[in-house]
Amino acid sequence: MEESLGCSPAPTLTQFLSDCQARVERQLNLHLKNCSSSQALAQAMAYGTLNGGKRLRPVLAYASALAVGGQLQSADPAACAIELIHCYSLVHDDLPAMDDDDLRRGKPTVHKAFDEATAILVGDALQSLAFQILSHPGPGDDCKTLVQTRLDMIAALSQAAGAAGMVGGQALDFEAVGRDLDLDELKTLHRMKTGALVRASVIMGAMAGRHVDTDNDLFSVQNAALSDYAQKIGLAFQVQDDILDEIGDTSTLGKPQGSDRSQHKPTYVSLLGLDQAIDHAQELAKQAISSLEQAVFPGDTEILRLLARYIVDRSH
Amino acid sequence: MEESLGCSPAPTLTQFLSDCQARVERQLNLHLKNCSSSQALAQAMAYGTLNGGKRLRPVLAYASALAVGGQLQSADPAACAIELIHCYSLVHDDLPAMDDDDLRRGKPTVHKAFDEATAILVGDALQSLAFQILSHPGPGDDCKTLVQTRLDMIAALSQAAGAAGMVGGQALDFEAVGRDLDLDELKTLHRMKTGALVRASVIMGAMAGRHVDTDNDLFSVQNAALSDYAQKIGLAFQVQDDILDEIGDTSTLGKPQGSDRSQHKPTYVSLLGLDQAIDHAQELAKQAISSLEQAVFPGDTEILRLLARYIVDRSH
Repeated sequence: MEESLGCSPAPTLTQFLSDCQARVERQLNLHLKNCSSSQALAQAMAYGTLNGGKRLRPVLAYASALAVGGQLQSADPAACAIELIHCYSLVHDDLPAMDDDDLRRGKPTVHKAFDEATAILVGDALQSLAFQILSHPGPGDDCKTLVQTRLDMIAALSQAAGAAGMVGGQALDFEAVGRDLDLDELKTLHRMKTGALVRASVIMGAMAGRHVDTDNDLFSVQNAALSDYAQKIGLAFQVQDDILDEIGDTSTLGKPQGSDRSQHKPTYVSLLGLDQAIDHAQELAKQAISSLEQAVFPGDTEILRLLARYIVDRSH
Repeated sequence: MEESLGCSPAPTLTQFLSDCQARVERQLNLHLKNCSSSQALAQAMAYGTLNGGKRLRPVLAYASALAVGGQLQSADPAACAIELIHCYSLVHDDLPAMDDDDLRRGKPTVHKAFDEATAILVGDALQSLAFQILSHPGPGDDCKTLVQTRLDMIAALSQAAGAAGMVGGQALDFEAVGRDLDLDELKTLHRMKTGALVRASVIMGAMAGRHVDTDNDLFSVQNAALSDYAQKIGLAFQVQDDILDEIGDTSTLGKPQGSDRSQHKPTYVSLLGLDQAIDHAQELAKQAISSLEQAVFPGDTEILRLLARYIVDRSH
């Protein structure tokens, strides 16, 4: 998803990705500027967030806002909040007591560039900031999203981020070390660990972009279709990650190729075999695209469809 | 604030404390029950939360709701959310990279009873749960708080918890190690580290308890008075903590007496001397009580006044 894309996405998508990335980068910069009287904390928060990430989740939120007929700017708070939750989880994941990673995207992780205590605080403060942004318009955010919509987005994000979502999935991941998971258990784990936040991105983008007078029934049908789409691409993303861990190139992956296997982590490749995992990823992308046909969307769903393809065609 | 109180608070206050503690305990139990498909995470979250804490912040929220003429139950979501933020901060504070504490209230800390990774995840998930509770009525929460009020509470809590509040204060605390702070710097640190959440407790309780038709001007005057009150008791609480660290009894404190001094932490006692610190705490309590006279309150402010006294008279 960065400048030099490994799989040449369609020109429309390339433009959209770069527009959204610039957009969320600008917004995050504003939110992080002078966010604390502790200079060290503010610097470390910026370091852990403004790090050249792919911004896939914000991109999904923006694409989803367009699909329901909204403007990009309506999804700015959602995009920033989701990305901050994602960034905080990476900072905490990298800690010595967790995955103990020294590098992320080729740069020292937050606890290496600063120290462990700072990295813990950075994660904690980024999570608070996510909810602050959704509850209260911040600098550069002139979005007039309805109060009820903001509250619905906070409900969706807090659920996706917490014990029943991302953090719960990470806990399941730890519990899985050293024992064999079957395919259903692996799916549950990933549905929580990465899927919940991907789904929240798509759903929150739609909440933000939706017109106030959208009919309730139409709203439900759109939500069901988007939720289905999100669930499929969430899994597809994870299957592709497992495939890339097996066959990808260490230099473009940003982490050592084969690291899952060497850590005896159960993956889709270890459970299905490589060929079947590749087929499964392609099949999930197709199903995601079909899901969108369950509902009528007032806006353009082209980007959502291109994103589903991109997720399984990417090389890093 | 526990069953065996060291300083015999007024009978009204004793009853109120025990009512509120039972109330918040019941609510927290419901929110934590089956909160994750990871049994280990759910257990560790309950262990880190249902630990016999004083529940001072929930008590303040309830007392504040009564002062503005509200019912106790209106402040249930605020009380739970604030306490979860407080508990998460203790779990993370105790980590080896932070204060490295093995015991809290005489029991092994979360990373000792479970492990470090779990303790990090527990803190993260408790923070998400706090915002989830404010955004969405949970089990046992039949409170019909207005949507705008819930959003205002989330704004207040996220700001108080994050980089400009509690977490920022913790970062300043780390920065202060090994260098001398003057009294103003120490006040800023504590205003963020503990004061912000104490203030949020009082303000959120008032938001929750306030009648829908409260006049806007009256609302502002009440808020200013409560904010002033909260700021004074927040500082008073910290000064009294520093005094107890110097003269308290290790067995009732739940931590080694004199630990601040042995760690060369700047305290009110080290900056003011013991006698002047005691006078200062008493003076702050008096000022807090006077602050309440700045506004007309439709409900009873007696408990808020008793709490201000209790905070500086407690022996642990």
